[in-house]
This record gives sequence, structure tokens and C-alpha cells, in this order.
Amino acid sequence: MNEPRYDVIAIGNAIVDVMAPCADELIEELQLNRGGMTLVDAERAKALYDAMGPAREISGGSAANTLAGLAALGAQCAFIGQVANDQLGEVFAHDIRALGIDFDTPARAEEPPTARCLIFVTPDGQRTMNTFLGASQFLPAATLNEEAIGGASILYLEGYLWDPEEPRAAMRRAIEAAHAAGRKVAFTLSDVFVIERYGDDFRALIRDGLIDILFANHLELAALTGEQGIEAGIAALQGQVPTLVVTCSADGAVAVSQGEQARVAAEPIDDLVDTTGAGDLFAAGFLFGHARGEPLERCLRRGAIAAAEVISHYGARPEADLQALMAEKLG
Amino acid sequence: MNEPRYDVIAIGNAIVDVMAPCADELIEELQLNRGGMTLVDAERAKALYDAMGPAREISGGSAANTLAGLAALGAQCAFIGQVANDQLGEVFAHDIRALGIDFDTPARAEEPPTARCLIFVTPDGQRTMNTFLGASQFLPAATLNEEAIGGASILYLEGYLWDPEEPRAAMRRAIEAAHAAGRKVAFTLSDVFVIERYGDDFRALIRDGLIDILFANHLELAALTGEQGIEAGIAALQGQVPTLVVTCSADGAVAVSQGEQARVAAEPIDDLVDTTGAGDLFAAGFLFGHARGEPLERCLRRGAIAAAEVISHYGARPEADLQALMAEKLG
Repeated sequence: MNEPRYDVIAIGNAIVDVMAPCADELIEELQLNRGGMTLVDAERAKALYDAMGPAREISGGSAANTLAGLAALGAQCAFIGQVANDQLGEVFAHDIRALGIDFDTPARAEEPPTARCLIFVTPDGQRTMNTFLGASQFLPAATLNEEAIGGASILYLEGYLWDPEEPRAAMRRAIEAAHAAGRKVAFTLSDVFVIERYGDDFRALIRDGLIDILFANHLELAALTGEQGIEAGIAALQGQVPTLVVTCSADGAVAVSQGEQARVAAEPIDDLVDTTGAGDLFAAGFLFGHARGEPLERCLRRGAIAAAEVISHYGARPEADLQALMAEKLG
Repeated sequence: MNEPRYDVIAIGNAIVDVMAPCADELIEELQLNRGGMTLVDAERAKALYDAMGPAREISGGSAANTLAGLAALGAQCAFIGQVANDQLGEVFAHDIRALGIDFDTPARAEEPPTARCLIFVTPDGQRTMNTFLGASQFLPAATLNEEAIGGASILYLEGYLWDPEEPRAAMRRAIEAAHAAGRKVAFTLSDVFVIERYGDDFRALIRDGLIDILFANHLELAALTGEQGIEAGIAALQGQVPTLVVTCSADGAVAVSQGEQARVAAEPIDDLVDTTGAGDLFAAGFLFGHARGEPLERCLRRGAIAAAEVISHYGARPEADLQALMAEKLG
């Protein structure tokens, strides 16, 4: 096995977030799924955008945000995801490359346009996401760079992208390529709705030993295992996932890896501004430590610190110097 | 004269700002005009964007930012400016309409694309702007809504837009329309480079009594009058401009109106993040008070408060509740 070229290569939605603060009443009025992620078609996306206040555009996408965190920490990363040949696609590509992340999936010439996620942020900092997947759902398996996948220590996949057919096939193929090269596969369950639709797929992947590192929040763990309570959920997956990481919002996180279990409290923050990207950045911090063989608790602490940074400002990608922050907090 | 439908109607560049923090060294390396505004062509814009870190997109444009401040304060406003029929054009149009500002200039179908301003923000909060004017410079006089212009108490024009030929002709026509309807014309000089190119035009407009309210910073005042020092500059324009407002960055501002003079200190802020939009928001606060016939000092205070808000965060449009802020600071 060659020395890996990348620490992490990820396949995910290539999305630009369109974010605006909003009053609680607007969430009701527009009948949004408060705190969750809802897929919307072009017509609904237009109606929601029309109802939205002045916004800012910041590159997003769950797995891409995780890579942004990893790259900020000093990891070598590559991203695979589908943009269209349009201005938002240029924005996404610029922002990810500006982080030093390799990104060479060719832009798609046809309609629909690049994906966007309309994010309404309520005064409590909670984000309500409405995603128009656009070009993102047409990632063809044929464009996968299997050499790059085989050259990364970890292949990271987002559950959100399991929904559309082409990327699902691409991710299945990528898992094979990673394992054929002796690499690890990490998977984030992304959202309860994905598990409701594809839980059987995920349980089969886990049973077949295809997932080496699994990220879930406590709701997703319950949806996947059918067990209430984190300990019961963890027990249900015992022996099936080498490394399991469960985040519990303000209650911190727990990880189990090769029989060892560790917990961490949420990192205290001064001001909760926008929870977008919390889980993505937790995964970034954890994976960074994990890829370096650090103790489980330290990996969790890295996750908590990265998550705390991202929820203290607008946007799902880090703004502070994460390396300096880790040095300060972890010594 | 009918009751005005708008407090302020503005003609300006329709620009989306592309903003990123940057190290001081990058300003040197890219040979940027630190703290200033430089017009760039498509090729240079691409090279600068490639060299820029991960960015966020926020609607901008000098006069449009001023309207954003006015609308946030409760004024009725309309905007005239040229976007292209593309995604950044949609972003600009959405954001300005979401503020309750009327905007009905039709998008332009041809190349070039919608204007963007690449803004490098150094650690001291100073912004260095590189503007690709794109569609903005093709605002045709024929699309001016003269009825709307005649129906606004104040027509507000930005000097930046004096540079391209079509908008210059449009602004000359708009000045005529405003004065024919008995309205006031406000003008901001925008940047020293504009005065270097068009100072004779501006001095003629002033001499001919076509500008009722003039905004300048201390550098622009010196460039316009050839006088060093604010008092000398003000004296040089005596009797030619009914209301003159001169901003002096951290040294506050001074205004002269109908023989009366007032001064204000800069509003103290906790944390200078990004100076983009400081002058634009100062104009917003001042115009809001002026349109309501408030005392000169109070108009200046409004300007200082609005400017302080906008420089305490990224982006050139207000994020805080400006009405609440004014109530708190002014009683």
C-alpha cells in the first residue's frame, strides 16, 4: 500500500448556502420543517427565496464543510461533487479550491443549475434548511477518480447524497475502490429523513462491514437502530462498526472505538449565532485526530472545539484559525 | 407638487460584493491599491479571484448600500441600476427587494455578467476593493423611470457611476427630471480617482446649482477643491452647495447647511471588522434625518451611528435593527 496522497477524500453535495436571519413567525407562515433539512423543487425554492430577507451566499454542503474544517486543521483533502457551469458553481469551486482542497469534478453543462440551500436562521441560532439539489444529484459514477479515492486514508461520504440515484451508485463504487486499496470508509447519516428512506441500505452497509467510521446524531442513531437512548443505540451497533461517533447537540458527544468508549461535553461558547455546520465541523475535528491515531477523547475534543467555532458565526465553514484554536484549547 | 411617493430614489452600480479576509502580504503581492477602489477588467478580476481566499457573497454597490440603510430606518426607497440576467443579478435583485426597496430596472440579457466587487479585508478591518463593473456600466438613459424620479423627495447619485458613459448620461437626465419636479439632488463623490477623471464635470454641476446635498470624505473634498484642510475645502464651496457633508473616518464628520455648521465625533465601536460601506451608511443616516428636517447635528449623529454598525461586521449593509439602535442612542 502506497503512502496516502490525501488524508480524506469526500463525496458530497456541492451546494452554496443562501442564509438569512428570520423571525420565528416566518417559519410558521412558510410551514418550514424547523431545525431540519427539507428537499425542495425549483418552484418551492423560488417561493421560499422570494419570502426570505436579504441573504448572504456562503459555500456549504455537508461533506464539503467537513473538508473545509479538515483543510483548516492542516489535512490534505480532495472533494468530489457536481456543480453546474454557472456562477454559483464558480463560487463553490473557488471557495473549496481556495482552501487548498483538490476539486476536479467537471462542471455539468446542462440544466439544472448548481445546488443551493436556503437557510432560515431564527433568533435562537437554529437553522432551517431547504435544499434545491440541482446539479448535485447528477454526479455520475463514471467521473469518479478511483485513483484519488485509493490514494486517500479515509473516504468520507454524506448520507444526504444517498437520496439521488446517480450519486448513490457513485458512492457504492467509491466504497469498493477505497476498500480495494485498503483504506477506511467514513459515513455520516446526515438526517433522520434519509434514514427513513434508506435505513435498510445503511443497515446492510454496516452489516457487511463496509463502514469503518460512522457519524450520527442521537436522533439518527435512534432512527437507524430503532433503540431509544444513546447507550441502547450504541449497544445495538456493537461489533458492527469499528468506530462510532454520536453527537448530542448541547449535551456533547460520545464515541466508541474498538471496545473503548469516551465522552466529551459541548465546548462552551459566548454567543450561539447559527448552528449550520455544527455536525459537519464536529466530524472534521474528530477525523483529523482519528487519522493521526490520537486517543479517542482527544478526537472528540477536537470535534467539540471545531463545532463550537462554526456555530458562533454565520456560515458552515470555519472562520477562525482552527489550528491556533486547537493549540490554545488542547495545548 | 404632489406628495412624494419615495423619500429617496438612487441610481448606482448594481454590484454583488465578494469578500474575503486576507493577510497584509497578499495586498503587496497582488499590487492592490490598499484601502481604495480600483476598476478591473474580466481578466484581472479572474486572476484576483483565483488568488482570493474562501469568500462570501453579499449584495453591495455604494448607493444601493445607502438605500439599504435608509430602508432599514423606515424610509421609502427605489433603486435604479443595471444587472445582467444571471445568478448574481438575481441575488442583487432579491436582496434589494427583500429590503422593501422598489427595483424595476430590467435585467440585461447580453454579456457582460452582473458586476462584482472583489473585496480583500486586511486584519486592520480596511477594505481594498477591485470592481468589475460588468452589466452595471450599461444602464441606458432610456430605461429611467422619470415619473418615479419626480416622485422622490431626494434623488441620490453615486460618483462611481459617473465613469461609464451610458449611466453618466442617465444621471444627467435624472438630475433634470428631479429638479423639474422640484426635488433635491444628492451626490456622493465616491472616490478620489473619480474626481481626478471627472472633477471638471462635478465642479460644473456644483457651480450650476445642480447639487443640493454633497457627500465627500476629506480626501475627496481636497481633490475637488484643491484646498488642503477641511475648513479650507468647505470655504471653497461656500454658497455653492446648500448642504455639504464631509466625513473624516475615525475623526468624525462635519456638515454645513444654509450657513449653519455642525460636527460629530465618530461613534465608538468595540471591534472594527470591515470598513466596507462606512461612507454609504453615513450617508444613509444623514439623509434619513435630513429628509425629516431634523437639526444638522442629529443628522450627523444618525450617520455616525449607522456607519459604526456597518463596520462592526462583514458586509456593507446593516445587520442590526437600525431603528432600535437609533432609538437607543438618540432617545
